[in-house]
Amino acid sequence: MIEPDDVDRLRASLRAIVGDANVLTGDDAAAHEIDWRRRYHGRALAVVRPGSTEDVAAVVRACAAVAGISIVPQGGNTGLVGGGVPDDTGRQVVLSLARMNRVRAIDADTLTLTVEAGAVLEAVQAAAADAGLLFPLSLAAEGSCTIGGNLATNAGGTQVLRYGTARELCLGLEVVTAAGEVWSALRGLRKDNTGYDLRDLFVGSEGTLGVITAATLKVFPTPRAVVTAWVATPSLETALALMRRVRQAFDAELTAFEAMGAFALALTAARFPDLAAPLPAGSTAGWQVLLELSSPHDEVLLVPQAERVLADALEAGEIVDASLAQTIAQARTMWHWRESIPLAQSAEGLNIKHDIGVPTSAMPAFVREADAALDALCPGARHVTFGHLGDGNLHYNLQAPRGEDGEAFLARFEPGVNRVVYDLVSRFGGTISAEHGVGQLKRDELLERQSPVALEMMRRIRRALDPAGLFNPGRVVDAGG
Amino acid sequence: MIEPDDVDRLRASLRAIVGDANVLTGDDAAAHEIDWRRRYHGRALAVVRPGSTEDVAAVVRACAAVAGISIVPQGGNTGLVGGGVPDDTGRQVVLSLARMNRVRAIDADTLTLTVEAGAVLEAVQAAAADAGLLFPLSLAAEGSCTIGGNLATNAGGTQVLRYGTARELCLGLEVVTAAGEVWSALRGLRKDNTGYDLRDLFVGSEGTLGVITAATLKVFPTPRAVVTAWVATPSLETALALMRRVRQAFDAELTAFEAMGAFALALTAARFPDLAAPLPAGSTAGWQVLLELSSPHDEVLLVPQAERVLADALEAGEIVDASLAQTIAQARTMWHWRESIPLAQSAEGLNIKHDIGVPTSAMPAFVREADAALDALCPGARHVTFGHLGDGNLHYNLQAPRGEDGEAFLARFEPGVNRVVYDLVSRFGGTISAEHGVGQLKRDELLERQSPVALEMMRRIRRALDPAGLFNPGRVVDAGG
Repeated sequence: MIEPDDVDRLRASLRAIVGDANVLTGDDAAAHEIDWRRRYHGRALAVVRPGSTEDVAAVVRACAAVAGISIVPQGGNTGLVGGGVPDDTGRQVVLSLARMNRVRAIDADTLTLTVEAGAVLEAVQAAAADAGLLFPLSLAAEGSCTIGGNLATNAGGTQVLRYGTARELCLGLEVVTAAGEVWSALRGLRKDNTGYDLRDLFVGSEGTLGVITAATLKVFPTPRAVVTAWVATPSLETALALMRRVRQAFDAELTAFEAMGAFALALTAARFPDLAAPLPAGSTAGWQVLLELSSPHDEVLLVPQAERVLADALEAGEIVDASLAQTIAQARTMWHWRESIPLAQSAEGLNIKHDIGVPTSAMPAFVREADAALDALCPGARHVTFGHLGDGNLHYNLQAPRGEDGEAFLARFEPGVNRVVYDLVSRFGGTISAEHGVGQLKRDELLERQSPVALEMMRRIRRALDPAGLFNPGRVVDAGG
Repeated sequence: MIEPDDVDRLRASLRAIVGDANVLTGDDAAAHEIDWRRRYHGRALAVVRPGSTEDVAAVVRACAAVAGISIVPQGGNTGLVGGGVPDDTGRQVVLSLARMNRVRAIDADTLTLTVEAGAVLEAVQAAAADAGLLFPLSLAAEGSCTIGGNLATNAGGTQVLRYGTARELCLGLEVVTAAGEVWSALRGLRKDNTGYDLRDLFVGSEGTLGVITAATLKVFPTPRAVVTAWVATPSLETALALMRRVRQAFDAELTAFEAMGAFALALTAARFPDLAAPLPAGSTAGWQVLLELSSPHDEVLLVPQAERVLADALEAGEIVDASLAQTIAQARTMWHWRESIPLAQSAEGLNIKHDIGVPTSAMPAFVREADAALDALCPGARHVTFGHLGDGNLHYNLQAPRGEDGEAFLARFEPGVNRVVYDLVSRFGGTISAEHGVGQLKRDELLERQSPVALEMMRRIRRALDPAGLFNPGRVVDAGG
């Protein structure tokens, strides 16, 4: 299909565009060929690291000129669904945006920040903070993921409840198309009704429609006061009643509402014995919730407001105990609990993961039915359930029964467990991927469960914008015949 | 192209689908053939009023089966750019969604409302209010525009600053495609990363890609306290300084920030002499701003907070006077001033309208330069400038010099004035249509000013989703060759 001569010629073209030092092959490319969770391992023709939008366009044109070559855009390579690593054909060029990491502009009156795709999320947060502003996107990989990857996968995280996903934080884009042209639309406009919404088509397209090279993002005033609280609640039903109460009382000041199941916390406590318990041991039954309030007003107003609402919730039986962080260190410990769950779970061994979403009101019924069905299917398996209850999104994971081998458990149960979980998700009008995306991991699942009408539209759009199948073939949906 | 027999047969098919009473022709169709501003007048083959999604799909299939027939979806027919009325060929079927106006569901825990496309915006607001919730989309036509039209045009209005445009208020859609299939995605999910964002492609597509038949919308807790204030500020620069201050102090509690120029208010005062002045007469120089704060907390907190911030702004020279509405009646009067400007302007005669957006920080420079250029081009013309300064969106209109005939003024100056204004908009990275859309009115302007790369992508998407050109041909962009 592709001759060795073609490979050499293409590498030479790429070197001519970005310089020898920025075309990696062999061992130098290795870190770009395997995903963060080490589930997908490929082999790239080369890893190319352009330094400018014009270079990206030239790289795209050079690759498009050789039949059989395709491009895998890559940010920080922290994706969870294998969307950013090459396949094993050796005919894919990994286009790493890592060198394009400049902050191009900050506009405090328009409340926008314009940044190149390869900027690490933490650096984007820092650039906003240096200007006294908040860029609220926040997730576990923020020290290494890039904003381009965040946009390409429409990342979620812990602040979606108030500020939305990456999509909702994006006002404008700069994109290199499959024709190697630059679509420059870095507009800091809240309102723009001049034709179809191309921006939101590229956001979340996982590198299959074009290469995002820069973005204009929303930033926000930094909250003046933050209250972090940890509560124990009897059930998911009472957790929702609490959420309704807190939302009514605080509206947009409610910035996080994270729920954690009893076993998820027990696992974390066992693995990290030095973490100070947010509540006395007797309060750990049922579910626990980390909630965060962020206000433009003074702490002397916010704290008593929070105390009063939680006291009312206690009286109504929605919670059985509550603790407000008294210091920044205590607040950090609460978040540390929440963030340590995935680590504790990994340390416990292999497990079956689901990143599901259902309408928030359906979450108690979903978890009840899924728990019962899985307890029947694989007795003794342990439920590690936690996540963004406020967004209707839980990480609904299943760990092998105590003492059983994780690998054997997965081999035996994974397909059946997925079927039970995803069938229920479908029945409740939910999604099999609330925030992680499709990539390679959930491609077949998507084909099976997404509506045929939607799939056909997606295929047509893919063919329309990338007729030759240059970008990330085999991921999300194929262009089809 | 199309034979009289074909017309009769199609009308008969349509009657068989929706019933005789719901296929209007001749005089019965007249109200659907002319737009609200009476600029576009066409002639429909028929106006069809389906009562269900299945009927819409059947109507689409019936029309698609006859070569040369196209469909113009229509909501409340309040659009400002001629996007919802038929052309004069007599070969277009107007598909009115007016009968599909049911509220299908309200979910208070998920904070969603599912409603059919033909529901009048005011009825959607009322359905939310009946459940103790807020649907915040609000605009002048709310008594007759429909939610389907609001979504198809990505409507803006007075609450965008806090709640976003129609796009940001929409979680899920039900759409009938050009193939007459139903894409049912009425999902109440905050997060869903399973493929391309089809939803946002239909939102704002002005009836050119499919027919929106229902939507799942975000609703919000109803604010507990609202403060409405009117301030006089020396310039747009000081207005922006004030906005920055108020945003920092109130964050998401700032729900409206509307600016009005001196002449816009003088015109309104002259036309509506019974409106009580929000400020003493001496304070009317420069610009005036209506600002609204909406809080989940008690009024006894919000009012002194607002007073303190405005006192600081006064001291900083950002404002020269301020008045807080003491009663609901006073607050209504303030809004009445803002909403009466377009009426006063229409009463004064024909004028040249622009619905422009630029990055908020660029608005003072834009207005200064545009004013100067237009004063040179047509001396004595009067600037009626007002709108959503908080969103970077002003209605930048020009009225004939006092005593001059509006029609003659338009005939002489409209193209030149548009060129000056839109050239400046382009230079400041803005938009020629912040909220009204493209339709017929701004189609040529779009072709001239939108980037060729974007236009080509839009054309390809249109061809991909509606290959036969069934929906609203000649509006927004054509599918091209």
